[in-house]
Amino acid sequence: MDQRVDFVTLGVADLEATRRFYVDGLGWEPLLEVPGEVLFFQVAHGVVLGLYTGLAGDSGAPTGDPSAAPVNLSHNVASDAEVAAAMQRAEAAGARVLKPAQRAAFGGFHGYVADPDGFRWEICHNPGWSVDADGTVRLGPA
Amino acid sequence: MDQRVDFVTLGVADLEATRRFYVDGLGWEPLLEVPGEVLFFQVAHGVVLGLYTGLAGDSGAPTGDPSAAPVNLSHNVASDAEVAAAMQRAEAAGARVLKPAQRAAFGGFHGYVADPDGFRWEICHNPGWSVDADGTVRLGPA
Repeated sequence: MDQRVDFVTLGVADLEATRRFYVDGLGWEPLLEVPGEVLFFQVAHGVVLGLYTGLAGDSGAPTGDPSAAPVNLSHNVASDAEVAAAMQRAEAAGARVLKPAQRAAFGGFHGYVADPDGFRWEICHNPGWSVDADGTVRLGPA
Repeated sequence: MDQRVDFVTLGVADLEATRRFYVDGLGWEPLLEVPGEVLFFQVAHGVVLGLYTGLAGDSGAPTGDPSAAPVNLSHNVASDAEVAAAMQRAEAAGARVLKPAQRAAFGGFHGYVADPDGFRWEICHNPGWSVDADGTVRLGPA
């Protein structure tokens, strides 16, 4: 089991609501779609985000309330102003603002929104973060 | 809010148990570590997995039981035999087997293990999945 994540799959209740937010609202382009069942988006080099109505059944595990799930997805941008702009776009697409854009404890600037199922997205400007051309992440003090 | 995930952050209870599994057990190399607080691993081109004891506080949202979280992380391998091998390695590192390696509903071969906090990893051979050199994911029938 090498150091690699290829898919992140979130269990959703209503794929039409999911679609309205990510596709119609944010303008994301599906990689693959099975109507009523699953939507896949490529979200990084080699990485897929899945939104899937059958998640509990697939793993055999019980699944609970997404809004209580101890998971954050982060979307990083290049400036404080872009945090505010991205949050406004998400809100216009139907996201709920959980934490308005503000100075973050780690020294950057961020806010949180929830997608239609309650999954949390952090919109973040982290001056200590960068990605080299070859994909290597640099992470240091903000 | 462009079509991109940069960080996936999981809320964990005991970072020492997390460390024993991912670092000591699986041999993963931390990108950055703040003892007792957070462990970051680079898990794809430009993508970071965080394991963080302060997750609930960061987003302002309540967080529940990770084992009930409607989220799967997937680690893809190139053959059915590699699924079994990766699951054995994870189990030896302290993971709990949730679903033994078997033919998957989508046509591939997979199994599920849980990390020390209960987060589910799918170990998967999906013959319909591939990644081009430039990072583009191809996803079709298995």
